Amino acid sequence: MRTQVGIIGAGPAGLLLSHLLHLRGIESVVFETRSREQIESTIRAGVLEQGTMDLLVESGVGARMQAEGALHHGFELAFEGKHRRIDLTGLTGHSITVYAQHEVIKDLVAARVAAGGELRFNVSDTSLHDLDTATPSIRYRHNGEPCELQCDFVIGCDGSQGVSRAAIPQALRQDYERVYPFGWFGILCEGKPSSDELIYARHERGFALVSTRSANVQRMYFQCDPKDSVDNWSDDRIWAELHARVDSDDGRKVVDGKIFQKNIVGMRSFVSTTMQYGRLFLAGDAAHIVPPTGAKGMNLAVADVRVLTDALRAYYDEDRNDLLASYSETALKRIWRAEHFSYWMTRMMHRLDDASPFEQRLQVAELEYVTTSRVAATAMAENYVGVAPV
Amino acid sequence: MRTQVGIIGAGPAGLLLSHLLHLRGIESVVFETRSREQIESTIRAGVLEQGTMDLLVESGVGARMQAEGALHHGFELAFEGKHRRIDLTGLTGHSITVYAQHEVIKDLVAARVAAGGELRFNVSDTSLHDLDTATPSIRYRHNGEPCELQCDFVIGCDGSQGVSRAAIPQALRQDYERVYPFGWFGILCEGKPSSDELIYARHERGFALVSTRSANVQRMYFQCDPKDSVDNWSDDRIWAELHARVDSDDGRKVVDGKIFQKNIVGMRSFVSTTMQYGRLFLAGDAAHIVPPTGAKGMNLAVADVRVLTDALRAYYDEDRNDLLASYSETALKRIWRAEHFSYWMTRMMHRLDDASPFEQRLQVAELEYVTTSRVAATAMAENYVGVAPV
Repeated sequence: MRTQVGIIGAGPAGLLLSHLLHLRGIESVVFETRSREQIESTIRAGVLEQGTMDLLVESGVGARMQAEGALHHGFELAFEGKHRRIDLTGLTGHSITVYAQHEVIKDLVAARVAAGGELRFNVSDTSLHDLDTATPSIRYRHNGEPCELQCDFVIGCDGSQGVSRAAIPQALRQDYERVYPFGWFGILCEGKPSSDELIYARHERGFALVSTRSANVQRMYFQCDPKDSVDNWSDDRIWAELHARVDSDDGRKVVDGKIFQKNIVGMRSFVSTTMQYGRLFLAGDAAHIVPPTGAKGMNLAVADVRVLTDALRAYYDEDRNDLLASYSETALKRIWRAEHFSYWMTRMMHRLDDASPFEQRLQVAELEYVTTSRVAATAMAENYVGVAPV
Repeated sequence: MRTQVGIIGAGPAGLLLSHLLHLRGIESVVFETRSREQIESTIRAGVLEQGTMDLLVESGVGARMQAEGALHHGFELAFEGKHRRIDLTGLTGHSITVYAQHEVIKDLVAARVAAGGELRFNVSDTSLHDLDTATPSIRYRHNGEPCELQCDFVIGCDGSQGVSRAAIPQALRQDYERVYPFGWFGILCEGKPSSDELIYARHERGFALVSTRSANVQRMYFQCDPKDSVDNWSDDRIWAELHARVDSDDGRKVVDGKIFQKNIVGMRSFVSTTMQYGRLFLAGDAAHIVPPTGAKGMNLAVADVRVLTDALRAYYDEDRNDLLASYSETALKRIWRAEHFSYWMTRMMHRLDDASPFEQRLQVAELEYVTTSRVAATAMAENYVGVAPV
């Protein structure tokens, strides 16, 4: 059995790549260890940059996002009892859409299925072979049977813990990592939105984020010890914490709701260089992780896929290798920009127990600046909507 | 003996305040522990912001600065073998002047002397009394004799180690400090300028700064261990270090010269809040220190003096206390802006031995951004020339 492009992982990167390649007449097969039901229900990020929105629409998978997603033209920064708005659209001409990642996945799976695309769920024991030759292969088990797929290229979209990055010899890779000493406590609740726009709050007690899912379901987060347990947090304690961190001096308050999900996630920054080894290319979380503060995770995966699609098209249509050869370098420019932005926003918004009181006070000085200087606000906005130059 | 305003310290803050008060008909006496010769020859900073230049010119002490200072419309950021320009004037409409601080001091001393101002050099044992009353006093020794001056206000312009800040009860103050684990090795040399504009270099070996004094005297610095000794650095070793850190891939080189002075200075950030206690007001280094990276030290002192002059004028001319009462709050806005900018630029440009490889790599990502994004470059420029909103 063979195909042109073997794709490991049915997250946003792998599914979008398969979809875009199909539109360009390039055949692919996607392998996923989980079931379709699992990937369509795993709750992750939910902010789509302008470029991500555009690509989904242009490639014919953006209709539901446009209908059901919420277009946002700004967000708020809350600090020192104040709420100040970053006018994304006024400052950059662009905006973002709040639309959950698993909804994007549903749309992409539906498109691939409708087009007769090959998606192999529930595979196991995936391994990559002959990556440094022109005839790489993917071995795996499906329903207990050993299988093998020959292909021209293998694209690793299998996330941080997948087999793809590990298939690049360590001696050829340089990894960069920063693990943060805090996590996010996330809740989903039934209730009305607290705000028309997202609120990012910096408070001495720690960061908080007020987000939304729909008119009736809200998503909120607050900085916590990543080793804490959700069992330590009653609903009352959670609401008290959110009120303390987000409510403004002029009476704006978080709206309480009925909490139906609680979880804690750790936070880290990670970049693997290179993103290519022979006929293997990494995309998305397989190559890089950002803390969720800047809402860049899925958008970076989409950006990688855009570069890779162009490179593969040039290879098949024009017999050109140059875009494939420069893929890692090209993709890393945007990745480092997003890594820096995510780190910067994380450092500005979170309680930093390891920082001096001087550095903690600088957070307020920087927030004052970002919300007072038009150019500083525009710098933040151009990164947030994803149009900063790279 | 009495005057209206007693000023402790004949640095830029104290001398300029005395000069500006004189222009508004307010009498002052300046006390300085060092001699006139010493203050006129101590080499310090040398970058004047637009607002500092304007104030010196408007108040009649800017003629020599305009004639002998070098007006700069930009500077360069060197990293990864590249030199990229920040076009200060193109981005902000403003510029800076490179003119040494001790030259400013000479101009101010000359103006005070010409106007018959009272400057008491070589005083000792200065102490401040009754600051929380309407009749504070300054006691000191001059030529061995104990003396006392009654005044309406005492202004502490006596730097970080002076008596003024220490006269504010510790219980009323909150100090913020960050000591950096590196220093600057500075040289003065005879030779031609290496560049028309300042060059700030970020290199894996550490920061370097190429500055200038005149057509024939150059000032350069490079990051070093603050506990290092100048005796460990031969001229050859210094030039090798500067070439390694600053020279560009396209052949631009630091121009060697004959070194005639070497020194090492430590670096720290410091802010004392409050800046007022009764009839005592702090200005300049007495209240705050910045690392020299952002070239803000003397400019912040000048900004404090501007606020204080207006407040004292309002008191004497209009019997208003409100500007004096809000002095600390008003001044601290600009101070925190400058503290943040200085910290930011210091962190971006210096080798950070305590940072992870990830954070070190982010320096390059941020420099790429600052030199590629017009809004990011403008944010840096508006801070550097001193017109960022506060």
